[in-house]
Amino acid sequence: MKIGVLQLNPVVGDIDGNCAAVREAVGRAAALGADLCLTSELAVTGYPPRDLLLYDGFVTRARRAADDLARDLRDGPPLLLGGVEANPCGVGKPVFNCAFWCQGGEIRQVFRKTLLPTYDVFDEERYFEPAPTGDPGANILRFNGQTIAVTICEDAWNDKDYWETRGYVRDPLEEASVHAPDVIVNLSASPLFLGKQSLREDMLGAVARKYRVPLVYANQTGGNDDLVFDGRSCAFGPDGTLTGRAPGFAPAVAVYDLESPVPDAVAADDFRREAETWRALVLGTRDYVRKSGFSSVLVGLSGGIDSAVTAAVAAEALGPENVTCVLMPSPYSSQGSVDDSLALADNLGLATLTLPIAPIMDAYGAALAEPFAGLAPDTTEENIQSRIRGNLLMALSNKRGSLLLTTGNKSELAVGYCTIYGDMSGGFAVISDVDKTGVFALARWYNDHIRPGIPEAIITKPPSAELRPDQMDQDSLPPYDVLDAILALHIEHHRSGRQIIEAGHDPQTVDHVLRLVRSAEFKRRQAAPGIKLTPRSFGTGWRMPLACRRDI
Amino acid sequence: MKIGVLQLNPVVGDIDGNCAAVREAVGRAAALGADLCLTSELAVTGYPPRDLLLYDGFVTRARRAADDLARDLRDGPPLLLGGVEANPCGVGKPVFNCAFWCQGGEIRQVFRKTLLPTYDVFDEERYFEPAPTGDPGANILRFNGQTIAVTICEDAWNDKDYWETRGYVRDPLEEASVHAPDVIVNLSASPLFLGKQSLREDMLGAVARKYRVPLVYANQTGGNDDLVFDGRSCAFGPDGTLTGRAPGFAPAVAVYDLESPVPDAVAADDFRREAETWRALVLGTRDYVRKSGFSSVLVGLSGGIDSAVTAAVAAEALGPENVTCVLMPSPYSSQGSVDDSLALADNLGLATLTLPIAPIMDAYGAALAEPFAGLAPDTTEENIQSRIRGNLLMALSNKRGSLLLTTGNKSELAVGYCTIYGDMSGGFAVISDVDKTGVFALARWYNDHIRPGIPEAIITKPPSAELRPDQMDQDSLPPYDVLDAILALHIEHHRSGRQIIEAGHDPQTVDHVLRLVRSAEFKRRQAAPGIKLTPRSFGTGWRMPLACRRDI
Repeated sequence: MKIGVLQLNPVVGDIDGNCAAVREAVGRAAALGADLCLTSELAVTGYPPRDLLLYDGFVTRARRAADDLARDLRDGPPLLLGGVEANPCGVGKPVFNCAFWCQGGEIRQVFRKTLLPTYDVFDEERYFEPAPTGDPGANILRFNGQTIAVTICEDAWNDKDYWETRGYVRDPLEEASVHAPDVIVNLSASPLFLGKQSLREDMLGAVARKYRVPLVYANQTGGNDDLVFDGRSCAFGPDGTLTGRAPGFAPAVAVYDLESPVPDAVAADDFRREAETWRALVLGTRDYVRKSGFSSVLVGLSGGIDSAVTAAVAAEALGPENVTCVLMPSPYSSQGSVDDSLALADNLGLATLTLPIAPIMDAYGAALAEPFAGLAPDTTEENIQSRIRGNLLMALSNKRGSLLLTTGNKSELAVGYCTIYGDMSGGFAVISDVDKTGVFALARWYNDHIRPGIPEAIITKPPSAELRPDQMDQDSLPPYDVLDAILALHIEHHRSGRQIIEAGHDPQTVDHVLRLVRSAEFKRRQAAPGIKLTPRSFGTGWRMPLACRRDI
Repeated sequence: MKIGVLQLNPVVGDIDGNCAAVREAVGRAAALGADLCLTSELAVTGYPPRDLLLYDGFVTRARRAADDLARDLRDGPPLLLGGVEANPCGVGKPVFNCAFWCQGGEIRQVFRKTLLPTYDVFDEERYFEPAPTGDPGANILRFNGQTIAVTICEDAWNDKDYWETRGYVRDPLEEASVHAPDVIVNLSASPLFLGKQSLREDMLGAVARKYRVPLVYANQTGGNDDLVFDGRSCAFGPDGTLTGRAPGFAPAVAVYDLESPVPDAVAADDFRREAETWRALVLGTRDYVRKSGFSSVLVGLSGGIDSAVTAAVAAEALGPENVTCVLMPSPYSSQGSVDDSLALADNLGLATLTLPIAPIMDAYGAALAEPFAGLAPDTTEENIQSRIRGNLLMALSNKRGSLLLTTGNKSELAVGYCTIYGDMSGGFAVISDVDKTGVFALARWYNDHIRPGIPEAIITKPPSAELRPDQMDQDSLPPYDVLDAILALHIEHHRSGRQIIEAGHDPQTVDHVLRLVRSAEFKRRQAAPGIKLTPRSFGTGWRMPLACRRDI
């Protein structure tokens, strides 16, 4: 059997556009000899549709579009199409997450997702009713004399022999196994975190091996808000070996011959950290900007490494002609920062605009002279500068219709080393899930692998916000390698202060860092969305109380 | 049997403080003759603890605190205590939402919540494993010869005779009914929406009547971030009549005698819309400010009704001495707006500060003269003014350690009639779930029922942002009564544009309004938290995609 995998880049909510892309892709798969085709999960609506699913008008339209698509494709190979339909009974959640079996011009069978991820960025229990229990043949499809187990994403992620701890009691693969399937297929919308493809291939290979059947996995690609879907759909033989892999971070139509796999069906890939980071940031930025209806962006360049890397990502994502860099030097800005920024823009072919902010700082100083009389300067004056820059950038953004990118990294966002309504202003936070150590590594990798565009001085000089004379990040923060290690334990591994100290970190440093993390929660609540790269990023999956005492 | 209801105001995460409050309240209930006591749901951690629950160190501490509390209370009446414990097996979610039966110095029985709300602001499936099926005596407590059905919040909200559509297949009350309980108790953390108490009393009364047993319901009180818990714990007789009601919007210890209810156990209350709104805003604001560690606030006064009502709420919540009003007139501000603002502050006893912004506007104008050369003025220039005010307010906030309150209403936030990083700047958005029509009604109600503090001119003049000469809201928006009706259908009732037009609204107006709603999604993502008053507010329960096509 030849299975065509349609790895597409849907726009969330764009039912007509997404269905048109499926229609076109089925045609390509048919030309490649596919016996049947497979989309990713929720291909009709794009994943994740989030609260659009609470509108019954939306669900009805999406369901009708699946019917229309089945009819349009009556002469093509049959299709397993990811979509939604309303829960017709008055009990439980309003929607089912489905795979529609489109054959002969109509939907002949509907498969429902059983395991509904509700953790981190996933909210599926919020919308979907699971496939009911006690219906063991429900995920079995008979086609051309073959028995196919149809699973949707998470349904394949709960094997008790693979996982030490499991999220669910049920296992749809085990339920299907009593029917001795000849093949397992999986419609997926699996967002990236760094290293995830190795995990997927290891786990899915183990499942194929366990049940001794081929397995075909179709993933979505593209960036949707904070999530990047890396594609890399794949196929496995009954011994668990990888027999096919589609390209990463791009749409693709691939046809996998289950009986006679060909070696070149496995696309070369690069799973190394910086390579994956780069590709995810470029795709995530490009898709956020374009799917939001913008074509150009603005980046404020400080002379530091964060804005340099952000500008490099933007140039790659949108083309250098669509990126404008804005320099806004203050009396505290070093000449080196200005020179380095101009050199960076020149290397990358980006236009620049320079707007000195000293006169505006003076105007604020005059306005606040009376209420601030007799009070010593503090971070207030630093924040004013940052917010002046935010206002100028937003003014340019409004006037030109360009999206403003913010440049903060994850370490800063964690400890609040950033100004809300200042440098946090902007529509998309490109590197907000890359810690400072990772930003340095990415800058070096970029210079080595893409082009030597980031001036060495930007990488080697000690980081500074330049908001007061001779300010250095390390005056108020521990060294970044120490800081990032503590932050990873606390944020990504949910370790409490006590546990981090027990792991060998200095108690005072840990207390200081965690106090900063706690007190910055209100800033994160109002932060721009950014690209998720780690298993635990700030953003839609980070749901902390604000007015609380969290001594953890 | 006399049941003591401990209606407390916990601080989320403050395990020690919350347990101390329970300890003290048990003492008061004992003095009032309680045979057993009942806290609200998750009294140990406060509700909702959100992602604190992902830290096993937090869950362990909270569980140990329940043990300690049981020991401390060995000589008092026994206690049903809301708290958490870890799920000990490696399958399913990490935590159970529990009621601990504390008797004789130890926890003798643990009851687990069965129905886990996962909709709107609720994310319980994210954290909690439900009580397992097939254990029908699991929510039955035997005490003093009585059989008590122990339920936790949502467990009591799925009666098939009461609800036309239901969220769950299981019904813990029905499961308990085979044991013929003598009484039903419910530990709850039920946040307010306007009118909810009538629904609660009707529904819980129907349940008591159906099973012909008394029912006692203990609710949390206080504001926790966007949620206000209105207390109003209550008791019902076996015929469903209301036999007790604790005060609303305040902590209370009440003892309900199930055999001999006394008439004055039912506290007087006022369920009218503006009365409930006012009490919720005052409590929510007070608790957010104080639980965040602030004691004073700033409000920017524009001369309009939104900032006037916000200032009135703040004055009531924190005392007029803790509220400073800031006037920031521009050349487009009318003298009337300045005079009205000063009159308001004077009426309410609030300090004012006036900072004219014209010189700062000029400084921005000069800085942007070159990039804006030849381009016509548009909303860019209006946003600059709004962001100047945001920067000044945040500077005062930073320097004084006062929390900045934002003043936008729900109608504005819905259609994007507000400036991100401008008037949207601030830590808490007091009236962000009150539509413009509701703000007018609240202002009149305040003048009639609290004090005649809001100058009549503020209520009667046509709304204007005063960001350009002779600007009026109604120049770019439909009349507020029309706008608010359309918004309610779309936002609170999830009606699509087509459905709203079918309901009789003008097609062009509907298209215009919904286009505005869609294009403002990015602003709402970065908005400050505000107090939920409706079944569907913007905030943690509003989860819309950003870079999408949502033609609904």
